[in-house]
Amino acid sequence: MATLLKGAEVVSALNEMIKADVAALKTDGVTPTLAILRVGEKPDDLAYERGALKRAETVGVTVRQIALPETVSQEALLEEIERINADNTIHGCLLLRPLPKQINDGRVRAALLPEKDIDGITDGSLAGVFTGTKRGFPPCTAQACMEILDYYKIDPAGKNAVVIGRSLVIGKPVAMMLLQKNATVTICHTRTTDMPSVTKRAEILIVAAGKPGVVGAEYVSAGQTVLDVGINFTDEGKMVGDADFAAVEPIVGAITPVPGGVGTVTTSVLMAHVVEAAKRALTRA
Amino acid sequence: MATLLKGAEVVSALNEMIKADVAALKTDGVTPTLAILRVGEKPDDLAYERGALKRAETVGVTVRQIALPETVSQEALLEEIERINADNTIHGCLLLRPLPKQINDGRVRAALLPEKDIDGITDGSLAGVFTGTKRGFPPCTAQACMEILDYYKIDPAGKNAVVIGRSLVIGKPVAMMLLQKNATVTICHTRTTDMPSVTKRAEILIVAAGKPGVVGAEYVSAGQTVLDVGINFTDEGKMVGDADFAAVEPIVGAITPVPGGVGTVTTSVLMAHVVEAAKRALTRA
Repeated sequence: MATLLKGAEVVSALNEMIKADVAALKTDGVTPTLAILRVGEKPDDLAYERGALKRAETVGVTVRQIALPETVSQEALLEEIERINADNTIHGCLLLRPLPKQINDGRVRAALLPEKDIDGITDGSLAGVFTGTKRGFPPCTAQACMEILDYYKIDPAGKNAVVIGRSLVIGKPVAMMLLQKNATVTICHTRTTDMPSVTKRAEILIVAAGKPGVVGAEYVSAGQTVLDVGINFTDEGKMVGDADFAAVEPIVGAITPVPGGVGTVTTSVLMAHVVEAAKRALTRA
Repeated sequence: MATLLKGAEVVSALNEMIKADVAALKTDGVTPTLAILRVGEKPDDLAYERGALKRAETVGVTVRQIALPETVSQEALLEEIERINADNTIHGCLLLRPLPKQINDGRVRAALLPEKDIDGITDGSLAGVFTGTKRGFPPCTAQACMEILDYYKIDPAGKNAVVIGRSLVIGKPVAMMLLQKNATVTICHTRTTDMPSVTKRAEILIVAAGKPGVVGAEYVSAGQTVLDVGINFTDEGKMVGDADFAAVEPIVGAITPVPGGVGTVTTSVLMAHVVEAAKRALTRA
C-alpha cells in the first residue's frame, strides 16, 4: 500500500505562502496580475482558464482574460503580446496552446518577454532551466513535480531519478531540475530499449509518457516514489494518468493520484510564478 | 584490446567537407572568417589560439586575432564584442575564457550574438541545444563527441548513453545531443551514489569528469564505447584524459586516446561552425 502523495496538501502549503507574498506586495502598492491569453474557445482551454481563475481568486492574484477569435491573424496576436510586454501592471502571461494552424507557434513564443513567461514557453525561460539562471520561469508542471518532492521531503540528492518523456513542457525541464538538486538523472522515451529495466532501478520515477496507463506493474519496484504527470480521459470520460494506478500502487512506496496529484499543484505554481514575477519587477523598478 | 577511436581520421573527413564548403562560399564571394578574442596572455589561451590558427589555415578559414590587455575594462570588452556583432565580414567569434576577475562573464556572454557564437557560450545557443532549434551552435567539444560517434558509425539510437559531468561546456549539452539522437541518457556527477554501477551499464560512456584518471577499470565493462573528453597534465607534463587509459582500454570495446582523441576534433568542429555561420548569414542576406 503506497503513500498517496496528494496534491491538495501541497496546494494548501503553497497557497499560504503565495497569500503572504501577495499581501506583502499589496503593501508595496503592487497587485500581482496574470494575463490569460486565449485564442478561440477550445473546451480544454476554457476548463484550464476556469481552474486558474478560481485559484487566482483564492490566493489574491488578479486575472485579466484576453480572448481572441479562433481566426485571429498572427500580426494581431503578436500585437497583443507586445501590449502585454509593455504593460507594467501585468506581471505574467499565460498563453493557452496549442494555437490555431494559421499561427507560427515559434514566432509567438519568441515575442513574449521571458520576464513575463510564467509557464516556461520562451527560449529565455528554457535556457534558464538548462543553465540554472533565473531570467524566466520553468514550465509549471515541471516545477509542480519539484514542489511535491519538496513538500513530502523526498530529497533527490544522490538518488536515481528516471524521467519517462522528453518534451519541453515536462520531460527535459524536470530532468534538468532534478539534476540541479543533485539526482543522477536518466531520460527515457519511445526509442528506449527495454524501458522497464531502466525504470525499475529508479528511486524517483517521473511518468510523462503522454499515454494512458502505459506504465504497468512491470515498470516499477518496491519503495519507489512515482509522480504521474499524465492527464488522459477514458472513453467513459474518467480522468486517468499515464501509470496504471491499480497495478502500480500496490508495489511502489509512494505515488501521486490522478486526479488530485501533479495537475492540481500546477495551478498553484502558476500563481506562485506570477507573484515571483511581480517581486522581480519590483526589484528591477 | 579496444578499437582506438582516433581523432585524426575524423578530422581528415571533417576537413575535407569544410574545405569543399569554403570553396563554395568563396565562389559566392564570402570568405568564412573567425574572430578570436583573447584577454591577456595565458599560456593555455595562446596554445589554443595557435592550434586554431593552424587548423584554420588548413581548411581556408580566415582568422582575425583580437588581443586585449589582461587589465581591460568590462566596457571596453563589451564594445569590442559589439564591433564583432556589427561586422558582417566576421561570421563567428571565439571568446577565450575564463576571463579576468574584473569582467562579469555572464554579461559578456549575453552580449555576443548567438548567430556568431560558434562555441555555444550564449543562452541563445544553449536554448537551441536544449530545444533542438538552430539559432546558435552547440559547444564544440560536445559536437566533437557526436562527430566521433558519427564517423565511427556508432548510432546512439536506442542505446544506453551515460555522461559523467554536468557542465554547460560538455556534460549537459552532449546529454541533450545524445537524447536528440534517440539514446536513453543518464547524467552522473560528483553527487552520484555508486557511479561504477551506473557507468558499467552504459553502451556509450562520455567521460567529462574534469579529473585525471578517475575512471578506472571498475567503471567500465566489455563492449562499451568510451569517449574521454578530459585534458589534464601530469606533474611530468604528460597529457592525460579523465579515464585511466591503461586500466580501461583492455576492457572496453572502443576508446578515444588522449591526446589524439576528442580534443583534436574540437578544433575542426570550430571551423565547421564558422563555415556554417557564414552559410547561414548568406541565406539571411
